[in-house]
Amino acid sequence: VPAVVTGRDQLGDLVEAARQGDRAALARLMSIVERGGDDGATVSRLTHPLGGGAYTVGITGAPGAGKSTLTNRLCSLMRAGGDPVAVLAIDPSSPFSGGAILGDRVRMGDQAGDPGVYIRSMATRGHLGGLTLATPAAVRVLDAVGMSWVVIETVGVGQVEVSVAGAADTTVVVVNPGWGDAVQANKAGLMEIADVFVINKADRRGGAETAADLESMLSLRGEQDWTPPIVLTTATSGDGLPELFAAITGHRRWVESSGRLAERRERRTRDEVRSLVSAELTRRVADVTAGERFDAAVASVAAHRTDPLSAARDLVDGSAMMRPDD
Amino acid sequence: VPAVVTGRDQLGDLVEAARQGDRAALARLMSIVERGGDDGATVSRLTHPLGGGAYTVGITGAPGAGKSTLTNRLCSLMRAGGDPVAVLAIDPSSPFSGGAILGDRVRMGDQAGDPGVYIRSMATRGHLGGLTLATPAAVRVLDAVGMSWVVIETVGVGQVEVSVAGAADTTVVVVNPGWGDAVQANKAGLMEIADVFVINKADRRGGAETAADLESMLSLRGEQDWTPPIVLTTATSGDGLPELFAAITGHRRWVESSGRLAERRERRTRDEVRSLVSAELTRRVADVTAGERFDAAVASVAAHRTDPLSAARDLVDGSAMMRPDD
Repeated sequence: VPAVVTGRDQLGDLVEAARQGDRAALARLMSIVERGGDDGATVSRLTHPLGGGAYTVGITGAPGAGKSTLTNRLCSLMRAGGDPVAVLAIDPSSPFSGGAILGDRVRMGDQAGDPGVYIRSMATRGHLGGLTLATPAAVRVLDAVGMSWVVIETVGVGQVEVSVAGAADTTVVVVNPGWGDAVQANKAGLMEIADVFVINKADRRGGAETAADLESMLSLRGEQDWTPPIVLTTATSGDGLPELFAAITGHRRWVESSGRLAERRERRTRDEVRSLVSAELTRRVADVTAGERFDAAVASVAAHRTDPLSAARDLVDGSAMMRPDD
Repeated sequence: VPAVVTGRDQLGDLVEAARQGDRAALARLMSIVERGGDDGATVSRLTHPLGGGAYTVGITGAPGAGKSTLTNRLCSLMRAGGDPVAVLAIDPSSPFSGGAILGDRVRMGDQAGDPGVYIRSMATRGHLGGLTLATPAAVRVLDAVGMSWVVIETVGVGQVEVSVAGAADTTVVVVNPGWGDAVQANKAGLMEIADVFVINKADRRGGAETAADLESMLSLRGEQDWTPPIVLTTATSGDGLPELFAAITGHRRWVESSGRLAERRERRTRDEVRSLVSAELTRRVADVTAGERFDAAVASVAAHRTDPLSAARDLVDGSAMMRPDD
């Protein structure tokens, strides 16, 4: 169990400061949940009761599809309504630190000087549960400090990244014109999570064919309650961006009015608690199968005094008493 | 938790009968440990204190290498000393039931009429923990009923099968003459577990080259306490079998006199208890993430009354109280 480096009261002060608009406090909280551990758990405990108001939009697609430029343009439109917007950029394969990516973003973006936009990149390699656990914890902080929109941008490669993008209230899948891009998206599992499709770089040839590919693949899914609209955009010029934002808000109205939003969020909560149970038990296996109690149990089994299954059950039962520090 | 179909007393009677030489009782016990569950756990509990006298020999190699014929010949030599011998034949990819394989074995073998040889094939597909947990439980029964030698024959393909064969007191790896067979064995991870190498079908061309291949690969391993001897056999004629048995007993003498046998067995016990802890926790995750308590926890998190990590920890702590029926 890692040492508690920050007291619960100090973390409470940090949450309060972040809610008052202190961006440095928010950045510290985000770093804490990124690191995980006991402080991360405390921040989750403090922020969870304060949330529920943010609407999350996942944006995913192959590397180079233009997701960052799209996200940037989309933020402008979300901001036009006056609501605070956060972007969580997740690319676990990126060699850059969070700061480096953030720097690039701010330089290229329209949002550089806007205090109503908060952009954060996440680096969560090597953590227990990784992205699957760190992302909802980060969203929870952004929700608690009053963000109205949280855009989660992930590269649509790899099961975890795809499932993180799919765990949003509305998920946007970005492809490019050209033969095979829709097929690749299908293979990566993006077809199942898409609420809205974007064909970005639509100024290139092949956009209509890619739209036809997507439509034929969608028709293979059979009857569904929601048919994902397909929007053509050119993020660099801004063409199609109002239509994309309208498609997102259209989907939002549908999930809110149909009761699907509550269902989705409950399913997400269910998945998150299940992942946390699994992570907690994995942590306890590590505790249980190391140290003196384990050595003593093994010695007793090796001497044929205890059978292995009884020893294993006793170890598990005993370990349940050892709770991590709060 | 599956229902307890047999009382502990009845299982105790079965163990006692099997120890008196009742082969039908032994067969029932083997079926019970194969199925796993609560009865399997009880049989393990009853048999573990009675064991410790059996010496296990793993025999593994590619399909078609001649493992069964070798095993059969080896049993004759082990029996020559008067000790009871058991064979556990494991081939999870086999489409035959245990009975069918056993029938083939008995027809082809020298051991058909010998009451001192017990041959059993295991079918353990689809179980929790599968072979990794069922094999030591089966060996434990054979040990408890007084077998002096237990030969575990597995196909040397797949991580689990290789590790099961490697979890013996002496492990024999079988290859055939011919270009590349040694290389395949190396790729399959057989190089690391071999205490004795057999080049079977040595009447074919290429035996010397295969021996040279094995030797050069062994030299790459660097300094080791034990250098696996390489024995050439023709199992169909029996050529080389006395040399193979001598190589096995030579390795046995070395592990016994060097203290390595106790070390190996303790490491195996350690691995088994660790696997059982993991299986037990996996079972509890399934218990924890189903049912009314889980639903109530999810509802509380969804309503922002409880944070997800506290809910997960409470579920895990609560579940530890629910032990399976003994």
